[in-house]
Amino acid sequence: MQLQVDKYWNEIEVGESTGVSRGRTVTETDVVHFMMLTGNWVEIHSNVEFAKDTPFGQRLVQGSLVLAMSQGLFTTGRAVAAFYGLDKLRFTKPVFIGDTIKVECVLLSKKDKNEKFGLATWEMRVTNQRDEQVQVAEYTYLNYKERPESW
Amino acid sequence: MQLQVDKYWNEIEVGESTGVSRGRTVTETDVVHFMMLTGNWVEIHSNVEFAKDTPFGQRLVQGSLVLAMSQGLFTTGRAVAAFYGLDKLRFTKPVFIGDTIKVECVLLSKKDKNEKFGLATWEMRVTNQRDEQVQVAEYTYLNYKERPESW
Amino acid sequence: MQLQVDKYWNEIEVGESTGVSRGRTVTETDVVHFMMLTGNWVEIHSNVEFAKDTPFGQRLVQGSLVLAMSQGLFTTGRAVAAFYGLDKLRFTKPVFIGDTIKVECVLLSKKDKNEKFGLATWEMRVTNQRDEQVQVAEYTYLNYKERPESW
Amino acid sequence: MQLQVDKYWNEIEVGESTGVSRGRTVTETDVVHFMMLTGNWVEIHSNVEFAKDTPFGQRLVQGSLVLAMSQGLFTTGRAVAAFYGLDKLRFTKPVFIGDTIKVECVLLSKKDKNEKFGLATWEMRVTNQRDEQVQVAEYTYLNYKERPESW
Amino acid sequence: MQLQVDKYWNEIEVGESTGVSRGRTVTETDVVHFMMLTGNWVEIHSNVEFAKDTPFGQRLVQGSLVLAMSQGLFTTGRAVAAFYGLDKLRFTKPVFIGDTIKVECVLLSKKDKNEKFGLATWEMRVTNQRDEQVQVAEYTYLNYKERPESW
Amino acid sequence: MQLQVDKYWNEIEVGESTGVSRGRTVTETDVVHFMMLTGNWVEIHSNVEFAKDTPFGQRLVQGSLVLAMSQGLFTTGRAVAAFYGLDKLRFTKPVFIGDTIKVECVLLSKKDKNEKFGLATWEMRVTNQRDEQVQVAEYTYLNYKERPESW
Repeated sequence: MQLQVDKYWNEIEVGESTGVSRGRTVTETDVVHFMMLTGNWVEIHSNVEFAKDTPFGQRLVQGSLVLAMSQGLFTTGRAVAAFYGLDKLRFTKPVFIGDTIKVECVLLSKKDKNEKFGLATWEMRVTNQRDEQVQVAEYTYLNYKERPESW
Repeated sequence: MQLQVDKYWNEIEVGESTGVSRGRTVTETDVVHFMMLTGNWVEIHSNVEFAKDTPFGQRLVQGSLVLAMSQGLFTTGRAVAAFYGLDKLRFTKPVFIGDTIKVECVLLSKKDKNEKFGLATWEMRVTNQRDEQVQVAEYTYLNYKERPESW
Repeated sequence: MQLQVDKYWNEIEVGESTGVSRGRTVTETDVVHFMMLTGNWVEIHSNVEFAKDTPFGQRLVQGSLVLAMSQGLFTTGRAVAAFYGLDKLRFTKPVFIGDTIKVECVLLSKKDKNEKFGLATWEMRVTNQRDEQVQVAEYTYLNYKERPESW
Repeated sequence: MQLQVDKYWNEIEVGESTGVSRGRTVTETDVVHFMMLTGNWVEIHSNVEFAKDTPFGQRLVQGSLVLAMSQGLFTTGRAVAAFYGLDKLRFTKPVFIGDTIKVECVLLSKKDKNEKFGLATWEMRVTNQRDEQVQVAEYTYLNYKERPESW
Repeated sequence: MQLQVDKYWNEIEVGESTGVSRGRTVTETDVVHFMMLTGNWVEIHSNVEFAKDTPFGQRLVQGSLVLAMSQGLFTTGRAVAAFYGLDKLRFTKPVFIGDTIKVECVLLSKKDKNEKFGLATWEMRVTNQRDEQVQVAEYTYLNYKERPESW
Repeated sequence: MQLQVDKYWNEIEVGESTGVSRGRTVTETDVVHFMMLTGNWVEIHSNVEFAKDTPFGQRLVQGSLVLAMSQGLFTTGRAVAAFYGLDKLRFTKPVFIGDTIKVECVLLSKKDKNEKFGLATWEMRVTNQRDEQVQVAEYTYLNYKERPESW
């Protein structure tokens, strides 16, 4: 089941959390698919022999794949009018094939926009099976302040 | 051919550009693959009937797919020690199935770090076949200042 | 968002419905993927020229793909201990590339099993964008009668 | 090579078998693809950590994937006019990543329909590399009684 | 159904043909998959805008994809001990998305090898829906001369 | 980064090499994808149990997949007007899942064609992580003799 990031701007409070999502294991299949999709075959992700000689000793999972996978662990609903932007994406620990990631969304800040809309910035915290944070990013959404009467 | 973002920190100057990459057409296959990969099936991307009734009149390409695809149009080399982070990702125009995207990387700023490394922040500008900017983001890399003598 | 088939056996009543799910458009990509996955390339699905000469005049979507796709439009939760079996799968109308399917789950029958479990048989009705029923099947689950105290 | 389920209704006898198909190993790639295709990421299939704590101790292969894969191990030909329906699909043993499945089709019953067609119900028995039956289902086809003269 | 290239060396005669295979339509999905698999994104296959300005006016299907797809339209069996090599692969006409290909295998030559084996060279002729030859190649197999007694 | 096979016919000399490409590890995912794409499920590639009983003791990577993957490790540019053909593809050693392949292109021969074009035949040598040659093939390109003035 996916986390729901779907409350109206007037109803959310800074600091509130969605709780933690289900987990998904990152497989070799996912890593290969992402290289296929992007066309980016940097050897730290695609070459086992090369990766053996790095400090990691094995292939790294692409940070952008972790980002994409985390985006399927939560979902937004009708209270969100648009995805405004993404900031401060940071890769805080390496992710390896076989790791299991999950995500928690915490409301960082709210910014009034106009009568109808406000901006809401959530921190998406991705953790692994040892509860270590491996990625963090700030997502800003344009939210309806309340449910439009016409709905 | 991929653009090369691969110069040492001492050699790059703010404002310099990599030029514009080859183009890649975003197909329905790509859009479906990205929903498969992420597990995120929001109807604006997955449901033709739903999309017909939106102001766009058709399915939108996922902003995160445009991000991922643009990451295959350029590549980094040995001068880049690590991908530090991504900021200010903004979706400036909608992308539709059949659009062709390309990317240009322009150096925005440099920040000294220590004797060996510096940070370099590039603006990645994604444009469509009408040269309209559809997405922009700032990538920061940890760069070697110069080629290590041991290489 | 996925429909939830997740109530305890004691709480559900014959005739109750989950409501109708979101819709998903069946793309050519999905049809090709399913032939890839199964290895079954029957020409009514894989050969445009062959399909032109059939009464349908075009490729058919595989019935088993509609089944598989419908299984992502709803989900079961902890109240369901096991998937017992599937019966009476029938293909009531052809599905074509570009059609949009959705599913509704209606409780058909309950059967007592023992102190802890009961069987629940749901009819999964798949409809297209014209609300025509295109597929129907009966899913039987082994359900917990109530939430175990240990949870 | 695929098994052929392709005889005219007048030529088949209850109890006859197609013999056993070639085998196909179920890989992690297949399991991930099926979650991608359906959009169903139930954790028993997608989360290694979750699966460790179940009685199985590892991820299960989706019953519906076994069904789909078995459908590529045999094929129907011109003697079959239509796929009428599927009944009594049961999951008799768990399938794990790395297991190799094969299928045998045995004619269960025949039912006269009209001058031209008859129904034929086959039991499709899926077994693993230890010849244990892991899945069984009844497929009913609408068969030509004999080869039409116009062919 | 796949063509069978599966006779013993002593039983085949130069000039004999397997007949023509079923057809398979080349979809945009196949073209994108092949770029994903190879990592080769040459613009004549991946960029609609670029392709418009070529003499073809549209994207070309990769010759190597046609080769790969034709290899699923026939199959070899136990009479073939090994795939010796491929020669004279030529691209005789362009293939476009939406074309339907089929293959015919004709025995070109036989060469004695030793007591047990002989080489057999087949010409694989790929044609489109207008029966124009689009690709041709010579496949050489190491064939058993006759069925080994031990089988 | 991909090797560049992109010099004008007048500028290349027999015996010259492009150097050795980056490496790519052949994963189980790649092997399964290629069976999916081609529809060719020969058991030496698809059935672990069958493969155990062969002299190799494990699944083989398809020779045609190695060919396809090698074609993403180098790329041709504007100096190449057309891919003329492929000859003498030979499989010199088995490739297994987990092996890492790379390619080197060496100019074998040149053949004058007319005022504007010449043929150039390159030997593409695929090696594994132990520098053993696993596949070799001759690619012939129709090359511009020099850069056209109109460019």
